[in-house]
Amino acid sequence: MEVLKRRAFSLWPPSSRSCVAFFTSKAYSTVSSPPRTESQNREAFRQAVVNTLERRLFYIPSFKIYGGVAGLYDYGPPGCAVKANILAFWRQHFVLEENMLEVDCPCVTPGIVLEASGHVDKFTDLMVKDEKTGACHRADHLLKDFCKDKLEKDHELSAEKAAELRHILAVLNDFSADELCAKIKEYSITAPDTKNSLSNPYPFNLMFQTSIGPSGSSPGYMRPETAQGIFVNFKDLYYYNGNKLPFAAAQIGQAFRNEISPRQGLLRVREFTLAEIEHFVDPKDKSFPKFSEVSDLELFIFPREDQMSGQPTRRLTIREAVSQGIIDNETLGYYIGRVYLFLTQLGIAKDRLRFRQHLGNEMAHYSVDCWDAEIESSYGWVECVGITDRSAYDLQAHADRSRVPLVAYEKYEQPREVEKLTVLPVKKELGLAFKGDHKMVVKALEVMGKKEAMEMKASLEDKGEAAFRVCALNKVVTIKNSMVSISIEKRKEHQRVFTPSVIEPSFGIGRIIYCLYEHSFYTRPSKCGDEQVNVFRFPPLVAPIKCTVLPLIQNQEYEEVAKQIAKSLKASRISYKIDVTGTSIGKRYARTDELGVPFAITVDSTSSVTVRERDSKQQIRVNVNEVASVVKQLTDGSVRWGGVLLRYPTRSP
Amino acid sequence: MEVLKRRAFSLWPPSSRSCVAFFTSKAYSTVSSPPRTESQNREAFRQAVVNTLERRLFYIPSFKIYGGVAGLYDYGPPGCAVKANILAFWRQHFVLEENMLEVDCPCVTPGIVLEASGHVDKFTDLMVKDEKTGACHRADHLLKDFCKDKLEKDHELSAEKAAELRHILAVLNDFSADELCAKIKEYSITAPDTKNSLSNPYPFNLMFQTSIGPSGSSPGYMRPETAQGIFVNFKDLYYYNGNKLPFAAAQIGQAFRNEISPRQGLLRVREFTLAEIEHFVDPKDKSFPKFSEVSDLELFIFPREDQMSGQPTRRLTIREAVSQGIIDNETLGYYIGRVYLFLTQLGIAKDRLRFRQHLGNEMAHYSVDCWDAEIESSYGWVECVGITDRSAYDLQAHADRSRVPLVAYEKYEQPREVEKLTVLPVKKELGLAFKGDHKMVVKALEVMGKKEAMEMKASLEDKGEAAFRVCALNKVVTIKNSMVSISIEKRKEHQRVFTPSVIEPSFGIGRIIYCLYEHSFYTRPSKCGDEQVNVFRFPPLVAPIKCTVLPLIQNQEYEEVAKQIAKSLKASRISYKIDVTGTSIGKRYARTDELGVPFAITVDSTSSVTVRERDSKQQIRVNVNEVASVVKQLTDGSVRWGGVLLRYPTRSP
Repeated sequence: MEVLKRRAFSLWPPSSRSCVAFFTSKAYSTVSSPPRTESQNREAFRQAVVNTLERRLFYIPSFKIYGGVAGLYDYGPPGCAVKANILAFWRQHFVLEENMLEVDCPCVTPGIVLEASGHVDKFTDLMVKDEKTGACHRADHLLKDFCKDKLEKDHELSAEKAAELRHILAVLNDFSADELCAKIKEYSITAPDTKNSLSNPYPFNLMFQTSIGPSGSSPGYMRPETAQGIFVNFKDLYYYNGNKLPFAAAQIGQAFRNEISPRQGLLRVREFTLAEIEHFVDPKDKSFPKFSEVSDLELFIFPREDQMSGQPTRRLTIREAVSQGIIDNETLGYYIGRVYLFLTQLGIAKDRLRFRQHLGNEMAHYSVDCWDAEIESSYGWVECVGITDRSAYDLQAHADRSRVPLVAYEKYEQPREVEKLTVLPVKKELGLAFKGDHKMVVKALEVMGKKEAMEMKASLEDKGEAAFRVCALNKVVTIKNSMVSISIEKRKEHQRVFTPSVIEPSFGIGRIIYCLYEHSFYTRPSKCGDEQVNVFRFPPLVAPIKCTVLPLIQNQEYEEVAKQIAKSLKASRISYKIDVTGTSIGKRYARTDELGVPFAITVDSTSSVTVRERDSKQQIRVNVNEVASVVKQLTDGSVRWGGVLLRYPTRSP
Repeated sequence: MEVLKRRAFSLWPPSSRSCVAFFTSKAYSTVSSPPRTESQNREAFRQAVVNTLERRLFYIPSFKIYGGVAGLYDYGPPGCAVKANILAFWRQHFVLEENMLEVDCPCVTPGIVLEASGHVDKFTDLMVKDEKTGACHRADHLLKDFCKDKLEKDHELSAEKAAELRHILAVLNDFSADELCAKIKEYSITAPDTKNSLSNPYPFNLMFQTSIGPSGSSPGYMRPETAQGIFVNFKDLYYYNGNKLPFAAAQIGQAFRNEISPRQGLLRVREFTLAEIEHFVDPKDKSFPKFSEVSDLELFIFPREDQMSGQPTRRLTIREAVSQGIIDNETLGYYIGRVYLFLTQLGIAKDRLRFRQHLGNEMAHYSVDCWDAEIESSYGWVECVGITDRSAYDLQAHADRSRVPLVAYEKYEQPREVEKLTVLPVKKELGLAFKGDHKMVVKALEVMGKKEAMEMKASLEDKGEAAFRVCALNKVVTIKNSMVSISIEKRKEHQRVFTPSVIEPSFGIGRIIYCLYEHSFYTRPSKCGDEQVNVFRFPPLVAPIKCTVLPLIQNQEYEEVAKQIAKSLKASRISYKIDVTGTSIGKRYARTDELGVPFAITVDSTSSVTVRERDSKQQIRVNVNEVASVVKQLTDGSVRWGGVLLRYPTRSP
């Protein structure tokens, strides 16, 4: 995952048309109070979703009986089932489809691995402390809140000042500690709540630190991403793949970030599930054989240039985006397409999903191109999947540190003749001539480029000496014939040795799930019309429970039939729930609608039963013996509701 | 998981008949060297399995390019697939079957939770340090090694001494720090390798410690088990279950133990996957409605008494074991049966699986009864699943610490009349009479038993005063009429309030997988008979890849057919591997046998193909269009190989 450059959420304005329409329209408007602002609508909508999620145990604040811990959440039973369904589909959609090599590495990671990857040095946020209470805050959050607050509430703000604050919001993520410090001082920003003065900002490393083994001498960290486990295994995985490129490895697992002050509920948490793919490819050939399978997909693309010039997102096919050079290569394009299919099949709304390219200042220096799948939610656009061409950076970093070559080979059909430059400094002579400086001279000679070496060779042969600039010494020295031997040899090479590039799609599973909850949630009047009923319109693929079984009335005969049906459902491996309470059938439907259960079987006779579809509320009559297999087909996707409607007698609800 | 009492592996002698037979028989005997001891056979067998596992990337020592970290292993591609298959089956076999409430809680856990559970105080091993190098060792390991070594190698050992050492091995796990210290001194045990002297043993906490949030003031640990996440959620889960008992909650996830010096390869590691069930039940009724579904299963049972008296394991049905009071209750018995079915369906050999009851000294004081599913491996009997009746201990511990009642209710059909004792100390009077001691007196009065209170009441009414022993003060005081009011009231109660018992089956997934590897591994001569071929006889359920597709020769027509078959397999969600290398078909079969792939499709014509079963090496002819569906049925278990043999023409291999 693109970690060395961290961002909160996109600041680029465009509450796109779809978004505005969504939050101000009837999609959520149960309370007939004076018209609300878009931001109030968002807030009310989110509250309704979150209330339902928490009440039905989709999630639970972790360790609640002890007061909870900020940024830690449990998945309760329906949330856990949704997550398991999504991960199973991820495996099928990515791992099985591309024959990826899935691995499973530990969370506990020794320090050296994360030093090599850069996390120990750079995986930080800037923090300030309340000088009296010692409470910690993220410096950029305080500055951001200050600017937003001013812009929203200070009606006497000059146009000039407003522009300044807006500019800060736009460039905030690039601020250094010094810049942040200057702004916090300039605006006299104090600690929230206490209003005490603040310390200067300083970097706080976001990894949970621990110690491996009993001696206390081996520092370790809880991994901040799963990717490093794949990189360090490159050599074995390449071998496993028959020493062939390209191939992709994948990993699903927990990752940990010790956030300074977690915000935004389920979106920024301290422990979360990542699903990451590392696709290793020859840097000279990033074409993708199956590109044509996704290239005609049309999706919302938000290229760097459009963001800079204030354009809205555009609809483009992936083929157009790659051929116009907007997306760097076919492999990136292929994965963008597959991510689009993955998310929309889960139930993410197509018009509230966009692919945003990172701006130059967001990307790490080694990245070739980087896209985020962003999903619109009540929090704005949320970065849920990052798809990055990270070049050879990671493999190179681990090869450098471990001294184990992490390379691939391309066998030539015919051996190729290459010219190989050899520069051999004669250390004894150089030592005599340059004394304490001689090591610098040796090093400079060794890393000389081909052109420079050939010029030196010519000069040495011609004049017996050559002038040579040693940067590290900042002076020009004279190299004599006896001090170096330079030769060009012709050699036959049978293969090319290179460090593969890696293209990394990285999925924040928890964020995808939260956005999916929002996209799936709606309300509708109850049967009697006296109250609003909450519904999650999960597709069967995602639904935590596929089917409820409801005896219409409390009677032994019906309960026997219900048990028999339950048994067949279990045999077909369909998750179900029996509800034998005496509550009215309407209320029992409402209960399961709120869990997003797509189908309900009502036992109202001993021979045939009613199957109801959640969103249309349409009902059909099916024989008791047949009903499990009908539900099986509906949930595994081999039949759709429309198809079933044609085959079975309908019933008005 | 039963954690407060930790054991290595069972020390009870009985290398059962099956085991001896296994390791000394032809099951592994490829080298025709002089006859080996059983222990050499075990070692050689293990080496063969582990070599294959490591070479084919079933597992990889984690962070290998950096020299690895003891006790941390990655699952490579086939290992990861085996694990995913086993977890999916676990969900189906337990969670779906019993409608369990699955949850998913974080690994990062605040200190208070693990203080309440007892882990902060008691989850320790005794450690000694090499006094010169500072290297750490487990004290019991050193003593154990010393005793074993002496018994094995010192041929001049007196019978008396030998008996003493054997006794130590038997009771070692109960040694206190002082006892261990005494023995280490008595035998002059020194550090392995260096032979330096050792420190006294002291407890080392096995949890990985960390800090939550930036302030450094909130200690946290990486959970040592997943169970606590369920206990702290009891209240919500009980509500979710409609306030009804019994119900079971489940969790699959990582757990962490910072072992002092990990040994035994994949069996004792520092991070591992647990799958745990907490079945909450009324302590007054531990019957199980579905008990009869497993009660006729006959399995190897090893009760406490038989272990003490040196008997071998016995074969008993679960019904017999429960009715004879060997297994405490039906719920425990039911889970023992389900665990047996789970393990044997994965491929664990029935005669190398036993259920061993904990001895009195192994069980925590609160446990009612405790059984381990132990699987025999080259390391001896390995504890893979613990099935424990933990009474109300865990819920009570968290209720006490959090002050949130974790209780269940039994509604009475008719309200019941109960006598309720009320003791109200009059603090003012007591304060005047007893000054500084009065708090102790108040407390003692409040916790007085019913009998004592009634006697006091009688005495007060009779004489106006009563003698009262206050233990905390170690003296008898005189209580006067004015100092306390004691009353008995009759009240109507509508429900019983109680803390549920919990029965906990806890699965060490990594250990099960390792034992399964050993039970599945065998060798056989290659086709030409010139070498031994390794095979894993995984059932299709477990196999990492279900099917290989092999064009008989390198030719475009066959490769096209192979691709077409691959496409159908993918559509049926069957994991497969194409091998288009020009290697001989025999070698390609051998490659996939070693990965445990159960079926191979050889493309040897464009209309029909050969399907080969791994273990029998039998072959059938199937049409190209039909082959994916045949393999699908074979892998999902709806058809067995024997059935297929009858339906399709066979081919001699």
